[in-house]
Amino acid sequence: MLKVTVIGSGNVAQHLIKVFLQTKEVSLVQAFARQPKSLIHLLPKEQITNDYNALQEVDVYIISVTDNAINEVSSQIPFKNKLVVHTSGTSSLEVLGSKNRKGVFYPLQTFSKSKEVDFSSIPLCLEAENEEDYKTLELLANSISNKVYNISSEQRKSLHVAAVFVSNFVNHMYVIGSEICATNNVPFEVLQPLIQEVANKINFLSPKEAQTGPALRNDTKTIEKHIEFLKDSNYQDIYKLLTQSIQNVAKEL
Amino acid sequence: MLKVTVIGSGNVAQHLIKVFLQTKEVSLVQAFARQPKSLIHLLPKEQITNDYNALQEVDVYIISVTDNAINEVSSQIPFKNKLVVHTSGTSSLEVLGSKNRKGVFYPLQTFSKSKEVDFSSIPLCLEAENEEDYKTLELLANSISNKVYNISSEQRKSLHVAAVFVSNFVNHMYVIGSEICATNNVPFEVLQPLIQEVANKINFLSPKEAQTGPALRNDTKTIEKHIEFLKDSNYQDIYKLLTQSIQNVAKEL
Repeated sequence: MLKVTVIGSGNVAQHLIKVFLQTKEVSLVQAFARQPKSLIHLLPKEQITNDYNALQEVDVYIISVTDNAINEVSSQIPFKNKLVVHTSGTSSLEVLGSKNRKGVFYPLQTFSKSKEVDFSSIPLCLEAENEEDYKTLELLANSISNKVYNISSEQRKSLHVAAVFVSNFVNHMYVIGSEICATNNVPFEVLQPLIQEVANKINFLSPKEAQTGPALRNDTKTIEKHIEFLKDSNYQDIYKLLTQSIQNVAKEL
Repeated sequence: MLKVTVIGSGNVAQHLIKVFLQTKEVSLVQAFARQPKSLIHLLPKEQITNDYNALQEVDVYIISVTDNAINEVSSQIPFKNKLVVHTSGTSSLEVLGSKNRKGVFYPLQTFSKSKEVDFSSIPLCLEAENEEDYKTLELLANSISNKVYNISSEQRKSLHVAAVFVSNFVNHMYVIGSEICATNNVPFEVLQPLIQEVANKINFLSPKEAQTGPALRNDTKTIEKHIEFLKDSNYQDIYKLLTQSIQNVAKEL
């Protein structure tokens, strides 16, 4: 049975605490929060601390705090040569203080406080300094997810940039679509099935195979109509740049 | 029982033929294809014609051909004052020839030949010149879909631009994400659950509420790291423009 302590009280920390509490192979020994109140709905107050010196010895300390605080928090852990990991997509392994063994336990998903998540389908990207620690993290990861990946700090850096494109920027496209609908009195729900199908399609086709639309067809007439339609909008530049980019990719094929 | 003839043999035409054949309330009388062979896997050859003069009288003629051909095809129908509709998101009602009554029957979805579609969840955007014709189209639409909308030519124009953002441009974000992964030896599948969740989220939240990421948080440090990471890439401009655009929208809130 793996003994684990979670340090942090944000979205990711809370989702990890919840899933560890439900996992037989894991014993969640403690959770650390600067404001213990913020976790009281999840576990008994005896298990919550805001005092680093009250931390008990466990197999893995999981630091799930804002990027800028990881280094400081890791240096406060009152042990040496223990396995200490963070959950960040952007921070390298080295951000962790040097007195303990370092690792990364990065769940690649978008978390909302209000929405339950099914951890079993969330990819966990693991990294460790040595094989034994990697195996410990793998054991922990496999106990909560079916999608476990060995991802180096370098790879994680690229993955985080890619994630911004496929999640934050995709959502911004939804924002633009919904604004265009609102301005023209069209219910945005008309676009919902299309949105679901576009995401669904790439379970079967590569994104390049799945590309469609006026830019790919080089349908100049439609593209010009759309650019004209957007002439007083903030989004004409985006339309032009993305149309050009789709055509550049098509040329490479 | 509504008598219908489909003119065209592309993706949309074929999906419409299939669903009408399965619908009790509809009698698919004929299908027109320049190459009758292209439809022979769908219906008996007696029902397929490539001769406009062989077209029988029906309640609705559905023209599902490339935008540029709609006018020409509509003028070839050897009847007067019949209901003739097209299935295009970009063409106006007026594109149809004037000797028949005009309408639009636009299924807003991305169609692939290889992939079956569930028509019942596809939004059908309808337009007609008079109420009686609208009712006929509504009857036809309700027989195959639960999502039927009255959308004017003006609204349809805006809807098509919005659809380019939420589908073609979204898919291009997936292309960029998959290229970044490939360049850095990360399996693209790691991003799949995130992609599905981002699309899923806007069933529960408005796109603006669902926005997350470094641009929204104004996390300058991460944004700079990402721009630096993309310095030799074709996608740095897109990263900058979309980051700026997310921040502009946030300022308006």
